[in-house]
Amino acid sequence: MGVMRIGHINLRVLDMDAALDHYENTMGLSVTDRDADGNVYLKCWDEWDKYSVILTEADSAGMNSIAFKVEKDADLDALKKRITDYGIDVTDMAPGEMNGCGRAIRFNLPSGHDMRLYAEKEFLGKAVGTLNPEPWPDEGKGVKAHWLDHALLMCELDPERGVNKVAENTKFMKEVLDFHLGEQVLVGPDGDIQAATWMFRTSTPHDIAFVGGPEMGLHHVAFFLDEWNDVLKAADIMAKRKVKMDVTPQRHGITRGYTIYFFDPSGNRNETFAGLGYLAQPDMPPITWTEENLWRGIFYHTGEEAGAFTTVYT
Amino acid sequence: MGVMRIGHINLRVLDMDAALDHYENTMGLSVTDRDADGNVYLKCWDEWDKYSVILTEADSAGMNSIAFKVEKDADLDALKKRITDYGIDVTDMAPGEMNGCGRAIRFNLPSGHDMRLYAEKEFLGKAVGTLNPEPWPDEGKGVKAHWLDHALLMCELDPERGVNKVAENTKFMKEVLDFHLGEQVLVGPDGDIQAATWMFRTSTPHDIAFVGGPEMGLHHVAFFLDEWNDVLKAADIMAKRKVKMDVTPQRHGITRGYTIYFFDPSGNRNETFAGLGYLAQPDMPPITWTEENLWRGIFYHTGEEAGAFTTVYT
Amino acid sequence: MGVMRIGHINLRVLDMDAALDHYENTMGLSVTDRDADGNVYLKCWDEWDKYSVILTEADSAGMNSIAFKVEKDADLDALKKRITDYGIDVTDMAPGEMNGCGRAIRFNLPSGHDMRLYAEKEFLGKAVGTLNPEPWPDEGKGVKAHWLDHALLMCELDPERGVNKVAENTKFMKEVLDFHLGEQVLVGPDGDIQAATWMFRTSTPHDIAFVGGPEMGLHHVAFFLDEWNDVLKAADIMAKRKVKMDVTPQRHGITRGYTIYFFDPSGNRNETFAGLGYLAQPDMPPITWTEENLWRGIFYHTGEEAGAFTTVYT
Amino acid sequence: MGVMRIGHINLRVLDMDAALDHYENTMGLSVTDRDADGNVYLKCWDEWDKYSVILTEADSAGMNSIAFKVEKDADLDALKKRITDYGIDVTDMAPGEMNGCGRAIRFNLPSGHDMRLYAEKEFLGKAVGTLNPEPWPDEGKGVKAHWLDHALLMCELDPERGVNKVAENTKFMKEVLDFHLGEQVLVGPDGDIQAATWMFRTSTPHDIAFVGGPEMGLHHVAFFLDEWNDVLKAADIMAKRKVKMDVTPQRHGITRGYTIYFFDPSGNRNETFAGLGYLAQPDMPPITWTEENLWRGIFYHTGEEAGAFTTVYT
Repeated sequence: MGVMRIGHINLRVLDMDAALDHYENTMGLSVTDRDADGNVYLKCWDEWDKYSVILTEADSAGMNSIAFKVEKDADLDALKKRITDYGIDVTDMAPGEMNGCGRAIRFNLPSGHDMRLYAEKEFLGKAVGTLNPEPWPDEGKGVKAHWLDHALLMCELDPERGVNKVAENTKFMKEVLDFHLGEQVLVGPDGDIQAATWMFRTSTPHDIAFVGGPEMGLHHVAFFLDEWNDVLKAADIMAKRKVKMDVTPQRHGITRGYTIYFFDPSGNRNETFAGLGYLAQPDMPPITWTEENLWRGIFYHTGEEAGAFTTVYT
Repeated sequence: MGVMRIGHINLRVLDMDAALDHYENTMGLSVTDRDADGNVYLKCWDEWDKYSVILTEADSAGMNSIAFKVEKDADLDALKKRITDYGIDVTDMAPGEMNGCGRAIRFNLPSGHDMRLYAEKEFLGKAVGTLNPEPWPDEGKGVKAHWLDHALLMCELDPERGVNKVAENTKFMKEVLDFHLGEQVLVGPDGDIQAATWMFRTSTPHDIAFVGGPEMGLHHVAFFLDEWNDVLKAADIMAKRKVKMDVTPQRHGITRGYTIYFFDPSGNRNETFAGLGYLAQPDMPPITWTEENLWRGIFYHTGEEAGAFTTVYT
Repeated sequence: MGVMRIGHINLRVLDMDAALDHYENTMGLSVTDRDADGNVYLKCWDEWDKYSVILTEADSAGMNSIAFKVEKDADLDALKKRITDYGIDVTDMAPGEMNGCGRAIRFNLPSGHDMRLYAEKEFLGKAVGTLNPEPWPDEGKGVKAHWLDHALLMCELDPERGVNKVAENTKFMKEVLDFHLGEQVLVGPDGDIQAATWMFRTSTPHDIAFVGGPEMGLHHVAFFLDEWNDVLKAADIMAKRKVKMDVTPQRHGITRGYTIYFFDPSGNRNETFAGLGYLAQPDMPPITWTEENLWRGIFYHTGEEAGAFTTVYT
Repeated sequence: MGVMRIGHINLRVLDMDAALDHYENTMGLSVTDRDADGNVYLKCWDEWDKYSVILTEADSAGMNSIAFKVEKDADLDALKKRITDYGIDVTDMAPGEMNGCGRAIRFNLPSGHDMRLYAEKEFLGKAVGTLNPEPWPDEGKGVKAHWLDHALLMCELDPERGVNKVAENTKFMKEVLDFHLGEQVLVGPDGDIQAATWMFRTSTPHDIAFVGGPEMGLHHVAFFLDEWNDVLKAADIMAKRKVKMDVTPQRHGITRGYTIYFFDPSGNRNETFAGLGYLAQPDMPPITWTEENLWRGIFYHTGEEAGAFTTVYT
């Protein structure tokens, strides 16, 4: 009971046609709806709810909001109380206010990111159905992403000013939304500054993650692929389609996942993340990465910064 | 809250030395304890609790019991009440009665299998530790299984006599232990006989499964590997070590997993199961396999019975 | 100088439409020509010559002939002399007698199989071209086979009557066509009966192979895929397209290759063979498999006969 | 007849102990001999000849010489004549002058690199033997490289001065040693400057390659692995062993191979190269990469320079 998983993310894109070409033809999502405001809704083939990505045309790239699905309608009331008691304002959203969803609640994370919780979303079904399903659909384009896997949110971190929104978010997600801490990076002279955290509600290594930076933003949004081999194929497809790459196939030390980073046409960083990594469980002791091993954690093969990890976000 | 995952399985083996050679050198588990009764306790490298397999020397192979770990100690009381209310007798087990565990409860599934629940087990830690961990350990033998993944229990099914312990177990696990039904096989002239079910509490496709047969028993116990490529390596290792194979590398239609089946020296069927398959979630609609597609579900590549699936169990 | 590689195979099929559906949509070959006799010519995407498969409608399945390409036109004269000197009749074929080819020679192997040699075939080019080529083409169906890799010919073997066409073929291919012996199976009470051989001219483990049986025929024709992962995908595609499988994903001990066997609609056994295996070289000592390890050599994972290896051929 | 394959490479290393730790424990080669001058000889597990790498302690890193094995002793006489007729001085080497080898010839490539040809080298055998061999050995360390695959030699290229040792080497290798041109990079205002070439005698995409630079040197020496998955494992091992990485897992557009680049402790660049890529054949039309696609050819996934490709060599 409580939060089940990431439900959807609302991304700002500079040019809707270019964005759709990317999310449809490179990532393999399908458009499932458009609304009067011009927002476009897309789902991955292995998802059953109506959408996991909302694209909104805007003057700047980035994330408008992120939403998680809870198991039961009553969870919304219970969580609203807990969030409010924690001192964070919660706004009710009427059924349909989020396209195809039942009633919802919204609030800002300590970092300022807009988060929503909902219990119901219109059901469309996986592309392979539920009766004697094939393991993968014949149709489908590009990397054929399975599902929206997680997002990494950039949160303000300024130790000198005593600001650490990573730690604040992590505490909130743990105490109020019952997320579990899977991994963390501790930095600073005393090794006590939580500079990044990975948190889960499913039994995969992360459903959301936070990393410290100069200001709030979106570091990347990740879509799931099965295996290391799919990461090769994804990178091949990025090359064929001349997608701007950030980081070529590599293993994360953190989560053990296989990854490539690249950018959508608006500059929002995408990841294709593959592999289960490990079975995340409430009683699994959190993993800690120290400052000197930080980059080994991020990019295991070199142990060094790669791409524009610390400098580009939206 | 409630059941988290499979905790351990107690297997009967005919010859302890042969069994240990198999589970240590072929499967890659490590012995963590032995008790006065001669039971041997083993864990996989990616598990943190003291053991996931108990080997007991006996005159016949098979499973003595299976145990699941719950999240909190209080869950034991709540679940004991629910199980009792359901009409199943529950026996309390004192701390230490199960080696290294806190207090526990035991009961028989409708199928007759001995099941235990516990909230605490001695912590030993993953082989790679929790501080700047490597993604996999250098040491380790054979297939280096990550963790005990699931078991498939054979349950009495005799439609003519109106006996269906698969359906009874499934109902119990769902209503009392809050497991979710991931997939099922429906057979019979009206397609309404639940001949096999796959159920989960984690977000992997199954933590336990039931299949109908002439009598109760253990169909197989499965250990997790990462990827399809690891299944090849596992099959190579079985060949090198002359392990009796049952089913060579193949995809399950059900769960989409990658698999090989083989037998420990006592005849207990083992599986190495790889791949996440899909993200199992409470709101994912269950998948149904019909009788004519049953074997496509079990062994996707041929759609036909392979090995000794229906004839050999312990 | 001399033989370079397998050039094409002429297969008999019972129904051309069904055969084309298989070779085009399942195997991924493209039709490049049809002739007045109704023969259909196909090539794989990674081949540059006009065709590697000729389909001929007939009342029975099987192989009409197999052709190898030599490096230079003058090789045809030199090899004709060597073959004739060896005591085998050679027939000249005029340019164009084999569609799109220059002059050729034909003869029967000691086993009776019709073999042809040619030096020129019309050039069409790889699907990816030769200027800044992509590593794989976007277009393409089914398993997207790279190229015709090899054929395994069944040859009469009857030790009691002193007949061993495997040995005779092997001697001829070695002494006259300069093939190298990569691997062999030796059986019989004295371990001196060459029951199967694998021979190469390229530096892959085999370009042609011979296996003993009750009569001459075609055991299988193999198409190349890159990796073990492609073998999974191929098996998935066979399942989706309901292709009759013979052997699911497995490793050959012989050649170390990754394989699946299956049948075209006429019953001709096909293989998708993946992996380089090892670098075959003239000075590599041949590998020998003994009778008790024969099946370990064929199907490494079980060491036992699988599918219809010894009983079905065309 | 003629050159078969790369035979061995003589590398200069700054510290023999550090070098041996690298080539033995990271690369998986075995020491097979040491000579009175302190040279150490190593072979890969899948090679049958005595050694493929000679390590020589020196004050600077780099390559002393590279040797190719020819098929027959008589080839040495024929090739000596052809090389001499081409205008290049050839020196005879007595049997044993190269450790464990028969007589040999040596000469300098137009680029200045020392090349040797030999027909015989002491036979030690593959680690898996030739009788019912396992596909891979249980013993073996690190990445367990199969064999020395190729070397990329840096050759002086200065179009303004009219110097192009890449083109001179390529012409020599083709006309005199019967190598085939697989791929080439053409640059310059008229696209006619051969800035890099890949050449083969086996049917793999390259046995030697040349790239233009400011002066002669060794760009990298490559060892073979099977598959993309082995490249991941290799990169993991480099991370575990803190090997200095140059380029993380990536696909080459040229050869289609899977690769990582890294450095031995002396700074000699190593590559683990995986995948057959394509079947290289004498009649395959050479592939050309244009200047604007040069980096797409080298590092396919980004199409951009990565690591220290153009700046570091030995």
